[in-house]
Amino acid sequence: VTSAIEAAFKGIRAAVGPKGIVDDAQEIERYVTETRGMYRGQTGLVVRPASTSEVAEVVRLAGEARLPIVPQGGNTGLCGGGVPQDDRSIVLSLGRMNRIRNIHPADFSITVEAGCILAEIQKAAETVDRLFPLSLGAEGSCQIGGNLSTNAGGIGVLHYGNTRDLCLGLEVVLPDGQIWDGLGALRKDNTGYDLKQLFIGAEGTLGIITAATLKLFPRPREVETAFLALAKASDAMELFARARAASGDQLTAFELIPRRGLEFAARHVAGIVDPLDRPHAWYALIDVSSSRPESNLRASLEAFLGEVVEAGLIADGVVAASAQQSQQLWRIREAMVEAQKYEGGSIKHDVSVAVSRVAECIERLTAAVEARIPDCRPLAFGHVGDGNIHFNVSEPARDNYKREPATTKAFLTRRTELNDIVHGIVAQMGGSISAEHGIGILKRDELPRYKPAVALELMRAVKRALDPDDIMNPGKIITLNEPKAEARPRRRAR
Amino acid sequence: VTSAIEAAFKGIRAAVGPKGIVDDAQEIERYVTETRGMYRGQTGLVVRPASTSEVAEVVRLAGEARLPIVPQGGNTGLCGGGVPQDDRSIVLSLGRMNRIRNIHPADFSITVEAGCILAEIQKAAETVDRLFPLSLGAEGSCQIGGNLSTNAGGIGVLHYGNTRDLCLGLEVVLPDGQIWDGLGALRKDNTGYDLKQLFIGAEGTLGIITAATLKLFPRPREVETAFLALAKASDAMELFARARAASGDQLTAFELIPRRGLEFAARHVAGIVDPLDRPHAWYALIDVSSSRPESNLRASLEAFLGEVVEAGLIADGVVAASAQQSQQLWRIREAMVEAQKYEGGSIKHDVSVAVSRVAECIERLTAAVEARIPDCRPLAFGHVGDGNIHFNVSEPARDNYKREPATTKAFLTRRTELNDIVHGIVAQMGGSISAEHGIGILKRDELPRYKPAVALELMRAVKRALDPDDIMNPGKIITLNEPKAEARPRRRAR
Repeated sequence: VTSAIEAAFKGIRAAVGPKGIVDDAQEIERYVTETRGMYRGQTGLVVRPASTSEVAEVVRLAGEARLPIVPQGGNTGLCGGGVPQDDRSIVLSLGRMNRIRNIHPADFSITVEAGCILAEIQKAAETVDRLFPLSLGAEGSCQIGGNLSTNAGGIGVLHYGNTRDLCLGLEVVLPDGQIWDGLGALRKDNTGYDLKQLFIGAEGTLGIITAATLKLFPRPREVETAFLALAKASDAMELFARARAASGDQLTAFELIPRRGLEFAARHVAGIVDPLDRPHAWYALIDVSSSRPESNLRASLEAFLGEVVEAGLIADGVVAASAQQSQQLWRIREAMVEAQKYEGGSIKHDVSVAVSRVAECIERLTAAVEARIPDCRPLAFGHVGDGNIHFNVSEPARDNYKREPATTKAFLTRRTELNDIVHGIVAQMGGSISAEHGIGILKRDELPRYKPAVALELMRAVKRALDPDDIMNPGKIITLNEPKAEARPRRRAR
Repeated sequence: VTSAIEAAFKGIRAAVGPKGIVDDAQEIERYVTETRGMYRGQTGLVVRPASTSEVAEVVRLAGEARLPIVPQGGNTGLCGGGVPQDDRSIVLSLGRMNRIRNIHPADFSITVEAGCILAEIQKAAETVDRLFPLSLGAEGSCQIGGNLSTNAGGIGVLHYGNTRDLCLGLEVVLPDGQIWDGLGALRKDNTGYDLKQLFIGAEGTLGIITAATLKLFPRPREVETAFLALAKASDAMELFARARAASGDQLTAFELIPRRGLEFAARHVAGIVDPLDRPHAWYALIDVSSSRPESNLRASLEAFLGEVVEAGLIADGVVAASAQQSQQLWRIREAMVEAQKYEGGSIKHDVSVAVSRVAECIERLTAAVEARIPDCRPLAFGHVGDGNIHFNVSEPARDNYKREPATTKAFLTRRTELNDIVHGIVAQMGGSISAEHGIGILKRDELPRYKPAVALELMRAVKRALDPDDIMNPGKIITLNEPKAEARPRRRAR
């Protein structure tokens, strides 16, 4: 670290004051380590500004010294997008900017600062009898700035859309330190380019989102949950199509769970039991919701289930009798993800294809990875209605994961090999190698193999236009110097 | 026209062949004249390429000679975005590219070429039992490429979103003649910047949309239409809030119509009669829809209407007894727009505010324009649920519009004056001076007064990055050289 950098750090320290600086080494560790422990980065300074103008001042000072800035929310990202990569890098945590600036039930809108925790926004909406529908595993710790910057998905996308679709306006600190105030609850505004779209999903590479106006929705008055047994994945597709039509657009969640997922969950997570008497190959976990009270959802759900049982589409199933039972069923979905880590190493994929091809995709992926690594254990689950499959491959079963970590390590060295197989098939099917998690550094060097060169050039043109000095989260999503198409994903040293 | 330009035109003629050229002077007139006759432009060449590769070749050749290209769909835009501005300009009409490339009911998606007429896409969706919900006055002649380029709104936005929200993927010819293929039916794809967002709503200034994959929806099985009488505009807001809550998200249209609009329509359009016995100050025209058959919509609508009559919110109303009656009620909405031209000159505005402030906005605008021009006749109608008000001001009533066109002309000279009043109030209220029509040339020079300089700078940075030679529809939305904030909207000579 040269004295010029030291001088810049000093200026930035002064700009945010002592409360805005993290100096404790152990605490700093939290800002340089990725949530799954896949990456450990390096930083020269961790700042936690308290206001948009402080963020702007930090960016301005960093820009003068051409120091990289890595914006960070709850640091729950799964692609290393929040990992700082050298000791010149400044981690800019938005966590102190956690005010709800206003909430307007009549406009179905809320304006929040980037550091607001997702669950807090959900709660705030509920207090005014509204719904903020973004919902995902990390909701207790992820921050809305990160959700916006990664265009987070989750279980509500089917009915309510991705985070992008939930955003009405943004406030952003630009790479030159200027503040763009694009907040506001307008549902329609065709006055030129829709600038907020640039920053949503850009993983902090074009600017720092400091606040957002978000859409709220009528709060559901009735929610019915069903857990349904299916013989094969393709039956889930048929069930989905029928449920969507029969529900009159009130199908608000449709999750596919494989038998293996239920077994993992029941084996490792307290309180998880198979809600059905006999084992089945697949399960669909569905919610239907209505914001109209007395909409008689349960009766129509039961009538619908009668029809699909009749048609031989589902073998068995249970409808939650209470909100508590509904939570228990949903707990299976969450526990499955949690349980995987007790089953040894796992190589994860977050892919999407056209909705109608989900079952075919699962079949092809399963066959391909089992052909390459016999006894590996694919766990294919996800948001069927969005065409989004989480295709996680656990290492072959054994009873000594902890005693023989070398075996797990050996399995995990095959990550690139499996990634190539899975992403290759998905690309052939016209799908995406990152449905909802983003690119970060994890998939950056793989992206050029699947994305047309002209698309990458367009991204670089936008990046250069907004951030010519490449100070905003450099090296995430794309590098400004085109990498070779053959380049392999790199894994950073621990 | 110099010989270099002639040479470029010659090359472009050869690239598209004789069928791709419009040489008839009368026919050319259609491509240089704006739909309301507000602008008459100039062009050197009108081409109608038959394929994406022909579009690319035209753009490449035009780019080499740095000739402006003005993409044009159905030429139904209301802001002059499709008007070519000099004899070097090439009008590139997408009308021959009108194939539906594919339609996938199971994926709820359709891929269409830019020149497809909106009504044809609606029909194609219907044939596979699906709904394409974009719906607006010009649907019989506007083309989807233009709808996307202007992010068109219309009456379905409340439930289904703007055109932007209906787009899954795009194919675009870039300013350098490269083709970006971003088509596909993926519902989730977080592999970098969402490039399609750049081109949607960009009015052809960043590239030419040649095809799009669009979202389809379950086709409504039941639609109920009601025409309700209200004492004041603010009652419409209350009615909207209640209807949204009571309908369980099945409210699919909510249009506000003033008494004056009904009178205009009844006076000038055959077959329009007041469906109610006595006059009322305001009307709400609403649709509730369900994709579930036997959803008993009519009974719930009637129960709801009983409640709001009880609450004194509506004074009278009628529920359509048949699809034909529903069409008749909707015909009032369309006829009102049509009828305005028979009431003399009219100065139009397309503004939006937060939904909760619509009534306040209408009151303030009405008071302000009536204070400035006594006896002028404001007609405020629109998509209340989107916060979108069409605030059109007709000249004072008289019985000799045709015999004394000079009076109309004199009224229309006050356009800028009224624009300033209306847009000034809307801006004060945090609203937009163009909710759904776009900027084009009509509002370009006004925009800098209402949009933060940093937003305009961002737009210019994006424009320069993608189109450094400024050949794509130059001078629309923004100029690359910043105009003075005091600049007034210019009206082109006829």
